[in-house]
Amino acid sequence: MAPKEKAQQFTLKTPKGTKDWADKDMIIRSRIFDTITSVFKRHGGVTIDTPVFELREILAGKYGEDSKLIYDLKDQGGELCSLRYDLTVPFARFLAMNPTIQQIKRFHIAKVYRRDQPAMTKGRMREFYQCDFDIAGQYESMIPDAEILAIGVECLTALAIDDFVIKLNHRKILDGIFEVCGVPAQDVRKISSAVDKLDKVPWADVKKEMIDEKGLAEEVADKIGKYVELKGGVDLLNRIKADETLMANESAAAGVKDMEVLFTYLAALDVEPKVSFDLSLARGLDYYTGIIYECVTGASAPPPQDGEANHDKKKKPKDADEDVSEYVGVGSIAAGGRYDELVGMFAQSKKKAVMPCVGISFGVERLFSIIKAKEDMSKVRATETDVYVMAFGGGKEWTGFLPERMQICKKLWDAGLRAEFLYKSKPKPRQQFDAADKIGAPLAVILGQEEYGQGKVKVKQLGMGENADEGTDVAVDELTAYVADLLKA
Amino acid sequence: MAPKEKAQQFTLKTPKGTKDWADKDMIIRSRIFDTITSVFKRHGGVTIDTPVFELREILAGKYGEDSKLIYDLKDQGGELCSLRYDLTVPFARFLAMNPTIQQIKRFHIAKVYRRDQPAMTKGRMREFYQCDFDIAGQYESMIPDAEILAIGVECLTALAIDDFVIKLNHRKILDGIFEVCGVPAQDVRKISSAVDKLDKVPWADVKKEMIDEKGLAEEVADKIGKYVELKGGVDLLNRIKADETLMANESAAAGVKDMEVLFTYLAALDVEPKVSFDLSLARGLDYYTGIIYECVTGASAPPPQDGEANHDKKKKPKDADEDVSEYVGVGSIAAGGRYDELVGMFAQSKKKAVMPCVGISFGVERLFSIIKAKEDMSKVRATETDVYVMAFGGGKEWTGFLPERMQICKKLWDAGLRAEFLYKSKPKPRQQFDAADKIGAPLAVILGQEEYGQGKVKVKQLGMGENADEGTDVAVDELTAYVADLLKA
Repeated sequence: MAPKEKAQQFTLKTPKGTKDWADKDMIIRSRIFDTITSVFKRHGGVTIDTPVFELREILAGKYGEDSKLIYDLKDQGGELCSLRYDLTVPFARFLAMNPTIQQIKRFHIAKVYRRDQPAMTKGRMREFYQCDFDIAGQYESMIPDAEILAIGVECLTALAIDDFVIKLNHRKILDGIFEVCGVPAQDVRKISSAVDKLDKVPWADVKKEMIDEKGLAEEVADKIGKYVELKGGVDLLNRIKADETLMANESAAAGVKDMEVLFTYLAALDVEPKVSFDLSLARGLDYYTGIIYECVTGASAPPPQDGEANHDKKKKPKDADEDVSEYVGVGSIAAGGRYDELVGMFAQSKKKAVMPCVGISFGVERLFSIIKAKEDMSKVRATETDVYVMAFGGGKEWTGFLPERMQICKKLWDAGLRAEFLYKSKPKPRQQFDAADKIGAPLAVILGQEEYGQGKVKVKQLGMGENADEGTDVAVDELTAYVADLLKA
Repeated sequence: MAPKEKAQQFTLKTPKGTKDWADKDMIIRSRIFDTITSVFKRHGGVTIDTPVFELREILAGKYGEDSKLIYDLKDQGGELCSLRYDLTVPFARFLAMNPTIQQIKRFHIAKVYRRDQPAMTKGRMREFYQCDFDIAGQYESMIPDAEILAIGVECLTALAIDDFVIKLNHRKILDGIFEVCGVPAQDVRKISSAVDKLDKVPWADVKKEMIDEKGLAEEVADKIGKYVELKGGVDLLNRIKADETLMANESAAAGVKDMEVLFTYLAALDVEPKVSFDLSLARGLDYYTGIIYECVTGASAPPPQDGEANHDKKKKPKDADEDVSEYVGVGSIAAGGRYDELVGMFAQSKKKAVMPCVGISFGVERLFSIIKAKEDMSKVRATETDVYVMAFGGGKEWTGFLPERMQICKKLWDAGLRAEFLYKSKPKPRQQFDAADKIGAPLAVILGQEEYGQGKVKVKQLGMGENADEGTDVAVDELTAYVADLLKA
């Protein structure tokens, strides 16, 4: 290898569907992580970290049709691995591997990978972050479920997102509806997938799909249509309870019982006003077994940038992996549900076959788009530097005080203060003020050619307009305490 | 997919060379990240996040012999990608893609991937974290270099690691030595690789490798041997300056000039006492062009656990990828150097061919082993829960106050306090105290069957021995303020 060989000629870019994060965007995203993490910890959450890739067989058979979107690692000898598709399956694998953990509230904030059709302006990427909180363990019915929904509300509220609704449904009620309407048992999951599209396409299209593509009888589809248009609160629960046909179904009755208990807890936790019990919510993933939910907001779909979204669907696929999925989803900023059987799929013995779980996952990229759109970016600082250390002087004898500036910075750093200086031996005052201004440092510490010899520096507040603060002389020995006090004020 | 099908029969594990992080280990590791991040920010660092995989051609030709350790993604149509091997090459790619960034102090804490022979007890994994700080831009010589070394000292000191030395050398001095000793120009990098092993094997072995494997003449090897045994501080610099043969070499003279300037700055930053100028330090990576350094500590190699390390070398490879690399390294906890030409390798035009960089990278897993060994793990809490909310009561009328406990928790959560309660409708006092004890919650808030009806709860300090605190009655309206004050005290 020789660095001096000719420059390389390939396109300089990140892989399709991935991007670099930098500058002020990173500040905003870190704030989102910090906010969500602090809510998670408030509820007793502990965090875990799993490898970014798993043995391929761990992921196999967990994602239904979406399995084709899994990224595989190349076979380079040894084990076959794939990049994780979500954080839920690795969590279930972790629980199955650690049978001594019988109860856990775990959170995990990390990247997941899907070979999906990227739609960057809508916040859909191939590499993206998920923030998951899950409660695993045998508990009395619906208590952890209620707390998970409370965490959902708290996180979004803490992120200053107020105009959201939690669409809530129960897989057992939905399965009961399909059964009483006459859907054959083996078709339930694919009919459920069709219903899942109702937030994006009208009923007529879903009905057509059920009949034309999934072979459902029209009168069965019509019966389903009557149910899935229902939404409401506790009132809807009462209407369903009055439906004797449905309530005669074992699955539906069990779901309704769960929902009754849940609504009591949601009232106690003040979550109920945010909830819409919505029989059209189905959720794509196969592993849910109890309540399911999605948080949606009017702000979920930010306006398209540069017209990209408008062209998306008309564009011809450019390469082989571009037409993997043609539907561009918008909508939910958080979602989840109860999955009582996923851990059992990994269990090595009958003994530890049951580990009920319920969880919620936040889509960071979508939250980011919403929050950034509301932010005054000119006021966001990329660095947190408190102090810019400068030197003023002139004449033949002037050294530029470079080692002296380093010594003053060292003092500030040792006191935990954030300080920078210009990497120049004899900088001009203007250059130093410009550099301080560029990063928005609130304070300057100035080493004057004469004053510094007398053990003094000048501390000056910046960003208040030219010469708004003439500065204060401070003894070098008292500098860090003085600066710390000023920053606290 | 049907979750109810038979349990799967493969081995439940994480891929070779990877592991899950959980519980108290996560707390300690998070603390390391927080400490390092706060030092990085103190120096004006901004963070970036790059994708976990890069286009394969970005990584090609950057790692010399180690390129065989790169993980490739499977070709599933579309672009060919590989997992990142370090954070430096992605940073250089980022800079080349963003030519408007002419100066940046960036840090990046993230996982990297190497298909290496794992040696877990020594903290060597296939998936591991690096914490990098790099300064890019055209500056006056050696100023950013000195600050990078100061950051190294500050980070390790902040992590309470005191017994470390920074081994320091300069590629130009080393290249000059090889040249004056008579190493043919095309053999410099491979002879340098041999020298790089001197911290692990004696000179006799390195000399043998140079002669037998790399075809060097014995008298050339002997001359090199005289140089690479030298170490010291500024004194060594003076000895080298007195070596007229070496100083007549252009490369060596340039390196010595750099080192003279650097030592002035290291004195100002109080880094000098930690530095050992060591002519045997070579560093494996090809892309270094200036100073190079490694932080080593006596604690770098923690004692082997379960005798695993002793068996490592005797074990026969079990699968195809087990014998990729046979040397098990110990030693450095941080390392880095100056690389002025890496960004230029990506430049698309002549114009922006130069972006000098200098950086340091901390090995988190090794720091973790050292810090964990010193920690009293029984005092580390896995959760940060402040308050356990309980209910005491009995008799026929006793409801268990579940919704009431939820309401109290909700109050505490809304005030930013960390609270949990038992997921049981009628828990016994003992069960609740045990649960609080298990997570080490410092406070209990108790809803008494009668008192709660009067708008009062009891706040009790925990973990002080049985009945050490009888508890204090507090009005529900004043609860959050009371608890917040108690936690502050």
